[in-house]
This record gives sequence, structure tokens and C-alpha cells, in this order.
Amino acid sequence: MTDDVFAGASESTGRSAVKRRAILAEATALFLRHGFRGTSMDEVASAAGVSKQTIYKQFSDKHSLFREIVEGVARNADTIVRRITDAFGDEPASTRESLQARLTDVARGYLDGVLQPNVLSLRRLIIAEVEQFPDLAESYFRQAPERGIEIITERLAPYRDAGLLRADDLRLAATHFAYLALAPALDRAMFMPSTLPTAAERAQLAAAAARTFLAAYGA
Amino acid sequence: MTDDVFAGASESTGRSAVKRRAILAEATALFLRHGFRGTSMDEVASAAGVSKQTIYKQFSDKHSLFREIVEGVARNADTIVRRITDAFGDEPASTRESLQARLTDVARGYLDGVLQPNVLSLRRLIIAEVEQFPDLAESYFRQAPERGIEIITERLAPYRDAGLLRADDLRLAATHFAYLALAPALDRAMFMPSTLPTAAERAQLAAAAARTFLAAYGA
Repeated sequence: MTDDVFAGASESTGRSAVKRRAILAEATALFLRHGFRGTSMDEVASAAGVSKQTIYKQFSDKHSLFREIVEGVARNADTIVRRITDAFGDEPASTRESLQARLTDVARGYLDGVLQPNVLSLRRLIIAEVEQFPDLAESYFRQAPERGIEIITERLAPYRDAGLLRADDLRLAATHFAYLALAPALDRAMFMPSTLPTAAERAQLAAAAARTFLAAYGA
Repeated sequence: MTDDVFAGASESTGRSAVKRRAILAEATALFLRHGFRGTSMDEVASAAGVSKQTIYKQFSDKHSLFREIVEGVARNADTIVRRITDAFGDEPASTRESLQARLTDVARGYLDGVLQPNVLSLRRLIIAEVEQFPDLAESYFRQAPERGIEIITERLAPYRDAGLLRADDLRLAATHFAYLALAPALDRAMFMPSTLPTAAERAQLAAAAARTFLAAYGA
């Protein structure tokens, strides 16, 4: 779990905190690999090198452990939001050509952020357990895909104000942009994780999304 | 399992065929509800009212049973393809306005076809088991989402030939149309199955997809 999307927020030390981090790290790996139902507390204890008693001191049951992991990881969707924000930059682009280049970068950052094997595994894990943990799945949707669309909506507003975009419903426009950028590769990746698009393919997908979006919404 | 997407293809009769259908129906319901790992052959036998021995006479193990079910259900993705084909109609639309109305119908048929609870459950089930059954997941992707895009590509070709659409890469255009229509609602539905869009919301999503697609690709 070296991917920064999965870095824990906790910095606390001490033997109990060290054990807690080991449990969370091993349980994350096991849940992502074998799913919620395919992972037992015995396996988590053995992988983390602690007793089951130690786990139950920190987490009341497997459900609580699962919740804590998914919520922690979902909070780290910030990484993807930061990629989008960075790609939009501080100074707005002032011409249609520079806006298209900017949106190509945004689409590319979004694609690169989401098409990480661990992010895809997390999506699969949450989707698999949606019946048992509907509130977790909803919270993930709000903090990850929906948050991405909100950021894009905010960042597109100055371009509408400057007359470079035409959109009565800017959130709808942002939603269209987000899924033009993401959906073709993401839908495929959910079913075919071993054939993720290459860097060259991502560049093409991103450029096509920006081009099509501006053809529809450019003023 | 009354949804026609889940109707079995077999029409054979006889006691053994009746038992086989009961096993498939109950196993489908159990797999969709509890996942592959959350379903045991004992539960399938008990739900189908047969002995475990009877199941093993028909299916060599749980993996084979799962494969047969997913493959059978994936073949029935034809239902969605038929919705798309029907919405395109036989006579091509001859004006941009009538093409927009036609594409709105196509987007709506596609949305209605995919946003069925059972189709969504099947997607979740396949996505959850992609590590264990990569070939099944790939086969589903090719027969369902990818087949939908192929049909749309074929059906858009006459409009490009007639000068109503402009697209160097018609398959890319069809992919953009498919995900403009489907992705916003589908991504949400995967995480929040209890708040599927109403008929009025689907109509808006479909109209917006057709409008945005034609704004980008209309000649």
C-alpha cells in the first residue's frame, strides 16, 4: 500500500498505535484482494502479526474495521481532487485554444487519478458490498465522483463568465465533461483491469473529451 | 426473476431439466443477493429443494454453476441491444431535429435497459468477482457495454453519410454518445441503488445527452 491514495492520516505513535496501523494496513490489503465476505478476522490477525484479542480491543467487529478502512480511503479521494485542481491552474486560460489545452490536462489528471489499480479495487470493493453497507457506498460516491464534478463545476464558472463557455446548467456541463473524460476507460477498467489504457491512449482519450466538450459547450 | 433479461434460454422439459432450471433460478437469486463467496452449494440445494448430489450431477462445482449463470445472463444483454435498435427505427431521420428526437429515444431506451435493478446487480456481481473470473468479466464487457457501442456506431453511420453528423472516428463518437447517455446515472446507481432516477429524470438525462452529442457532432 504505497500509493498515496491509501496513506493513513494517523501520525500517532506508541505500541498500540503501531499495532492499529498494522491491522488497518493488512486488513485493507485483504479486503481489497478477497472482499469483505472473503476476509476473516483470523486472517487479519495473522497477517498483522497480532492476536485476535488485540484486534477486538481496537475494532468492535469486522463491520467496524471495514467501515473505518473504507471511510479513511474515501477521504483520500482528495488526491484526485487535487490533481483536477492543479490541472486547472491558478490563472484561467484566456482563449479557446488554451482552454482546450487546459481541459485536456484536467481530463488526463482525472483519468490518471482514477485508473490506479488501488482506486479501481476500492471501487470494486464498495460496489460489491453496496447492499450491506449502503451508507458507506453513498458516502464514497459523494466524496469521490460527486466531489470531482463539484470541483469541475466551480472551475468552469469563470470560463462561462468570460464568455468562453455556453451552459445554462453548468453542473450538467461539468458532469458531461467528467464522464466524457472518464467513463469509456473506467467502465472498461472495472471489467478488464489487466488492460488499462497506456499513457498514449490516455492522452488520446483526454484530448477527445476536451475537444468534444468544447465543440458542444464552447461559445 | 421475472425480468426478461434473466429469462433462461432453455426450453427443455423432463424432471432433470426442471431441476436444472430450479437450481439455476435459485442460484442466480442467491449469487445476486449474496455474491459468489457469500453463497454456498448447501444454500443453493436447499433453496432449489434438491439434494447437493443432484446439483453436482448437473454442475461440477460452484465455479461452473456461477459461470453458467453469468454467461447465460450476459447473453440476454440482447434485450438492451434490441431496445437501442428499436429506438433507432427502420427509416433514418432526415433532419437534425428529427435526429435529435431519435437520439433522445435511443438514450432513453439505453438508460431504461441498463438501470434495471437486476442488470445493476449483475454488473455488481461480475465486478466483485473480476479477480477470480477475469474471462467472465471480459466476456460480459464485450457482450454488453461494448456491443451497445458497436450497434450505436453502425446506426450512426447513415447519418454521417447523409451529412447530418461530422465524425472522423465514428466509434469514438458512438462511445461519447453512449456514456453521455448512460454514465452519470449508471455511476451513481452502482453506489446508490436505492435512488434510481425517476422517469422524468431519465427523460431529462436522455434529452441532455442527445443535445450535447449533436452540439458536438452535428454537421
